[in-house]
Amino acid sequence: MISLDFLKNASGLIPAIAQDYQTNEILMLAYINEEAFKKTMETGKAHYWSRSRNTIWLKGETSGHVQEIHDILVDCDADTVVYKVEQLGGAACHKGYRSCFFRMVDGDSLKVVGHKVFDPEKVYKK
Amino acid sequence: MISLDFLKNASGLIPAIAQDYQTNEILMLAYINEEAFKKTMETGKAHYWSRSRNTIWLKGETSGHVQEIHDILVDCDADTVVYKVEQLGGAACHKGYRSCFFRMVDGDSLKVVGHKVFDPEKVYKK
Repeated sequence: MISLDFLKNASGLIPAIAQDYQTNEILMLAYINEEAFKKTMETGKAHYWSRSRNTIWLKGETSGHVQEIHDILVDCDADTVVYKVEQLGGAACHKGYRSCFFRMVDGDSLKVVGHKVFDPEKVYKK
Repeated sequence: MISLDFLKNASGLIPAIAQDYQTNEILMLAYINEEAFKKTMETGKAHYWSRSRNTIWLKGETSGHVQEIHDILVDCDADTVVYKVEQLGGAACHKGYRSCFFRMVDGDSLKVVGHKVFDPEKVYKK
């Protein structure tokens, strides 16, 4: 397996950007440790490290909105990766939008510009 | 000015992804603190926080490869931003490539897939 610079940050985590493999739309950013990267490589499905739950996280394990890996890009410092993915279910954001970046700076406020795909209350039954 | 969650990380820094405003190509990822974000908003040029030099950094201050801001997207947790930019000089990476993500995972190694725009030795005279 290729080696990434996980020790660059004290947390042992580096950012992974999920990008639509066809349109280049940025879907989300989350963090990975070495184990999450290994699981991603082994399974072909995006895994991240959940900083709130302190555990490995298969993206889509609850919602079914798994990200199938097409390619992985590595930056010049080997401390950030891009997952080129096919977003199953059409939405990456837990708020139901296609992309987590569904808001744009508009003066002193944020304007919703993203596309809502599902109702989170129906998908995440707590 | 809109408020971002800089305190999410102990470092006070959050990631900013620079993306070509026309093609959606991801050019680089760097970090911002509140001051860098404010300077970006005020000047319309991408500013970051340099973790190695511990200072605010106008992208392109040495190379001339400034990033002109077209739009700024904010994610659902307000702890990551996307700068939609026009990359002056055609290259974002200090290694001379259009994008810092110029390598792709290819089995156990990395394959160069990016486009080289300039020779770093000629641009960064040390």
